Amino acid sequence: MIIVLKINISQEQKEHVIQLLEEHGLKAVVSHGVERTIVGVIGSEENVLKAKPHVEALEGVESVVRILKPFKLVSREFKKEDTVVDVRGVKIGARRVVAIAGPCSVENKKMMFEIADEVKKGGATILRGGAYKPRTSPYAFQGLGRHGLEILAEARERTGMPVCTEIMDTRDIEAFEEFADILQVGARNVQNFNLLKEVGKSKKPVLLKRGMMTTITEYLMAAEYILSNGNPNVILCERGIRTFEDMTRNTLDLSAIPLIKSLSHLPIISDPSHGTGKRDLIPPMAKASVACGADGLILEVHNCPEKALSDGAQSLYPSMFVKLMEELKPVAHAVGREI
Amino acid sequence: MIIVLKINISQEQKEHVIQLLEEHGLKAVVSHGVERTIVGVIGSEENVLKAKPHVEALEGVESVVRILKPFKLVSREFKKEDTVVDVRGVKIGARRVVAIAGPCSVENKKMMFEIADEVKKGGATILRGGAYKPRTSPYAFQGLGRHGLEILAEARERTGMPVCTEIMDTRDIEAFEEFADILQVGARNVQNFNLLKEVGKSKKPVLLKRGMMTTITEYLMAAEYILSNGNPNVILCERGIRTFEDMTRNTLDLSAIPLIKSLSHLPIISDPSHGTGKRDLIPPMAKASVACGADGLILEVHNCPEKALSDGAQSLYPSMFVKLMEELKPVAHAVGREI
Amino acid sequence: MIIVLKINISQEQKEHVIQLLEEHGLKAVVSHGVERTIVGVIGSEENVLKAKPHVEALEGVESVVRILKPFKLVSREFKKEDTVVDVRGVKIGARRVVAIAGPCSVENKKMMFEIADEVKKGGATILRGGAYKPRTSPYAFQGLGRHGLEILAEARERTGMPVCTEIMDTRDIEAFEEFADILQVGARNVQNFNLLKEVGKSKKPVLLKRGMMTTITEYLMAAEYILSNGNPNVILCERGIRTFEDMTRNTLDLSAIPLIKSLSHLPIISDPSHGTGKRDLIPPMAKASVACGADGLILEVHNCPEKALSDGAQSLYPSMFVKLMEELKPVAHAVGREI
Amino acid sequence: MIIVLKINISQEQKEHVIQLLEEHGLKAVVSHGVERTIVGVIGSEENVLKAKPHVEALEGVESVVRILKPFKLVSREFKKEDTVVDVRGVKIGARRVVAIAGPCSVENKKMMFEIADEVKKGGATILRGGAYKPRTSPYAFQGLGRHGLEILAEARERTGMPVCTEIMDTRDIEAFEEFADILQVGARNVQNFNLLKEVGKSKKPVLLKRGMMTTITEYLMAAEYILSNGNPNVILCERGIRTFEDMTRNTLDLSAIPLIKSLSHLPIISDPSHGTGKRDLIPPMAKASVACGADGLILEVHNCPEKALSDGAQSLYPSMFVKLMEELKPVAHAVGREI
Repeated sequence: MIIVLKINISQEQKEHVIQLLEEHGLKAVVSHGVERTIVGVIGSEENVLKAKPHVEALEGVESVVRILKPFKLVSREFKKEDTVVDVRGVKIGARRVVAIAGPCSVENKKMMFEIADEVKKGGATILRGGAYKPRTSPYAFQGLGRHGLEILAEARERTGMPVCTEIMDTRDIEAFEEFADILQVGARNVQNFNLLKEVGKSKKPVLLKRGMMTTITEYLMAAEYILSNGNPNVILCERGIRTFEDMTRNTLDLSAIPLIKSLSHLPIISDPSHGTGKRDLIPPMAKASVACGADGLILEVHNCPEKALSDGAQSLYPSMFVKLMEELKPVAHAVGREI
Repeated sequence: MIIVLKINISQEQKEHVIQLLEEHGLKAVVSHGVERTIVGVIGSEENVLKAKPHVEALEGVESVVRILKPFKLVSREFKKEDTVVDVRGVKIGARRVVAIAGPCSVENKKMMFEIADEVKKGGATILRGGAYKPRTSPYAFQGLGRHGLEILAEARERTGMPVCTEIMDTRDIEAFEEFADILQVGARNVQNFNLLKEVGKSKKPVLLKRGMMTTITEYLMAAEYILSNGNPNVILCERGIRTFEDMTRNTLDLSAIPLIKSLSHLPIISDPSHGTGKRDLIPPMAKASVACGADGLILEVHNCPEKALSDGAQSLYPSMFVKLMEELKPVAHAVGREI
Repeated sequence: MIIVLKINISQEQKEHVIQLLEEHGLKAVVSHGVERTIVGVIGSEENVLKAKPHVEALEGVESVVRILKPFKLVSREFKKEDTVVDVRGVKIGARRVVAIAGPCSVENKKMMFEIADEVKKGGATILRGGAYKPRTSPYAFQGLGRHGLEILAEARERTGMPVCTEIMDTRDIEAFEEFADILQVGARNVQNFNLLKEVGKSKKPVLLKRGMMTTITEYLMAAEYILSNGNPNVILCERGIRTFEDMTRNTLDLSAIPLIKSLSHLPIISDPSHGTGKRDLIPPMAKASVACGADGLILEVHNCPEKALSDGAQSLYPSMFVKLMEELKPVAHAVGREI
Repeated sequence: MIIVLKINISQEQKEHVIQLLEEHGLKAVVSHGVERTIVGVIGSEENVLKAKPHVEALEGVESVVRILKPFKLVSREFKKEDTVVDVRGVKIGARRVVAIAGPCSVENKKMMFEIADEVKKGGATILRGGAYKPRTSPYAFQGLGRHGLEILAEARERTGMPVCTEIMDTRDIEAFEEFADILQVGARNVQNFNLLKEVGKSKKPVLLKRGMMTTITEYLMAAEYILSNGNPNVILCERGIRTFEDMTRNTLDLSAIPLIKSLSHLPIISDPSHGTGKRDLIPPMAKASVACGADGLILEVHNCPEKALSDGAQSLYPSMFVKLMEELKPVAHAVGREI
């Protein structure tokens, strides 16, 4: 941590800064530059973390610059090797790029089974489907709830594919423990810290989506909540951030993929369905995702998008999914992976 | 709702669009322009809402434009007169601009009482303080929890001021019903829909903060969740949105205040503490907030910011708060209000 | 400047960093922290500026943190007292808040004279009007060009008000020197560095609008271009930045006003017309601008907005302008100013 | 164009709307919905364009929704087949993905020749280098100017590669006509409309970079300026937009590539150097660019980045460039292209 002092700081204020650092067990290295005095802070990261907000509030302090990244357990420096998350035998973060596919919402058993069969044939190895749906409008379809979870579990029995589904409420954790294989935390809940703590206490892998408004640092800190509560099996997912551009639903920030891979050992997948919101943009952006190093893709597929109760416009037809999976093979090979 | 068809839409696809509208009880008015065919949709808003996602997913459809705003109960059209929320006798949304003040976090009883006394003297009529704190880092102070609520309740006994405090978890609703006077839903939970439903079932007024990345439409839809679950006592709060500018913690979007007042009957207050993140910017932005029509201010005040366990850099000293309240009086008068 | 070294930097790389600093006449103060080594750099700002990009490109360097702000001549530290710009006797940056008003475009002599008369009656002291118009579409009205400048000059003769109008091309500088009193550089040209240099060589005051995408630092650096070319008479103008919110044309970032006033001695005005894009939002945002310290307002006024060749939807009717000017008086008084 | 009327519009105001449309040679189709009256507008796009701003300014009008895209000459609807731009025999927009490479700035003849030789060996077919540099700071290196253009021309003689370099001032057009092969318009000048008109009158191909805050519509309208002034040889370039994320210099919006390809016939390339600002992110993002359909890449390469006078941190070493070109081959093949 570096503290930049104001030009007009008084001697008393300066001593107050140093004293406060010492109270936190930190050592101050004062350096008088040509135009400014700065204070380098030496000590354990834990103490620095505690002292920082206090220093920032002091009179005479112009700014406080953090030198170290605030995340620990999720960082490459803490753990050098890539984390590979095992979901009932499907490995995420290994050489094979994983395809998670299925409808936005679980609507009924028949459609769920049909789509599950189709995506399995296409090469998906994990099934997705929402039972509890976060909807902008209270008047929109809110999902089948627990019954949706039961249908998902039946689809798993039928196809052998583990299931990934979104949890929105800390009170639902037991039901998810019973029925789901991956607990998905959605973009809107990426800083629902109580939910993060709760899935952090679970033994199930967690798919943590980046929020549409979270910086990469905040996002990794959200993952840190889960790891620090005991669950190391976190899969990250870039799903688009919010920008001024309005021709796409979000702006898929693919540079986050190689950047996060350099900062963290956790696997990261890409969601071009939400990232673009437009069916026709999904195939090219899925290819781009694999080309820049994504460990997997999560894709919305619906057998009849115009009957879908949610996200029809960004759902692939099963035939498009099959074709895309074929086209992804040479892209994966081109970067030394399989799909 | 207006549907714009693609130039190359087939006759069959066109009929499919009209048929789908009819299945939803809607009437289609087809209009052949010079370069494009568009379909006007007539029918109840409820049916339009249901049909929209399906139409968007149809082949041959270029885009779907909503004509009506999606919010109902929160809208000016639904209710013309301003809503005035009564919090134990303090009226929010009436002529008098309300000041809600207090520390970011409840740290202990002594500091809470001291600050409560100070802000009351300065003219605050509602006390704020966080018992459960949403923190970016799992290693940062997370709040006193239930004990913090108890301290707040004692501060209310002592000062007579109702208390406003943030709820983060649906499981805590009973404790908040017992101790708090205003249930605050924070920026990060503005689209935690289960929490919105839960506070919507409460009888207590809700202070719903705008998310740092919610559009005004999404924000009003979040309020719609609360009203549609039975609670009409919602206070809105502009607290800054996230932009590319990094010299301030957020960008306080004051134009949201008069804009929301034209769209909705709900009262709206301003939070220049979080909106700027810098102590020195709070007084000018508080004045600007009142000048453009805010019904209140929520301000962080700490008797020793450099000892604050959170948000010290954006906390006013009690003396600054007192001075600001004085300076706000002529500004309020200038726009026909009191403070 | 602080240099943070990578954990795994080699001794050779470390020496290379120090050598490079020395080659630039800088002194390195190496500080070994618990987890990281950092290098404080001491020397003249000029040398630091030259060395920085080179250091950033070195292997073994994790990041480079600037301590000092990059702007000089525009900074408060360079000049403590507020700059007051004198435009033919109208003072911008003094106690009186200045109103610059007029149509978006100069359309013809008749309308220009009518509007000039009206805004003068309402209390404006400077007249605005565009002769060269930056339009998103090549098919939209592009302004009257030089003829527009001549009309403006005639309106100045008629009313005695100095005129403010936008320059878009370095080749037009002589015509503007002849006819205009304030050279306006528009938001889209805020980083048209050749234009900045050219108006920097002029003797006329410059109204430099913030770009919709410039950070405050970049914005002040654009002003620095003008001052460093010899022209100290720069008026800044907050006119809204681009964000994800789409209900307003831009997001008027009013916190930039007090923030820039703390960083720079230059006067700053507000443009709520472009800042909101909506006629009804202009009065409340004009009041907010004055309340937070703006030195002036620039407002679009048209006697027949629906006949305006540009920006009709954000133009005030003359009667609204007159009313607003009245309403602004108590707001200005409330913050110790006149209007 | 669709006009949504306010609920409380008067009969007189409604007639005023229709009359104004008729004055512009347009036909109004009024449609009374359950909650709102809307007016469909039928007529030539030219008339609609003229009428729109006037209608928006009318009392009683709630909003005006454009149905058609505002761009014409650049649109796929105007020209179905891909445009292939021929730069002295190098074809951009054809099957072969083109690599444009070279240093950020032309610093001197020796370095320019060395880098030119290296990138040619690596497989680049067009040489880049800045002679006039847009720099945020007036104190930073501003380029060699005309002398830089001469060096570039010599490098072309030496290597046979056409050269691409940025023009910043309308007054420089003749020098660029003489020395350059591609006139580059930089991100900061994407809405410098006079410069766009000037390069639109040139016979040389134009590389038009997307602005860091231009929407795709605005960006295509900037290209429309060039085409409508007579120059059809425009190459588009995604180079990153500005968002809240600050770990990268910009956010490379790769979805813009397939999206623009669906909207326009113009070729589009990607600039991962400026798009990320970080050397290590360039290879993965270059691969992603090719995978999602980019027609080319523009890359900064420097033989000694730490001595570069600009952008050293985002310059590839020549060896990295050579390696990347090799790695791009299978990616290009995977999507049916060559490089």
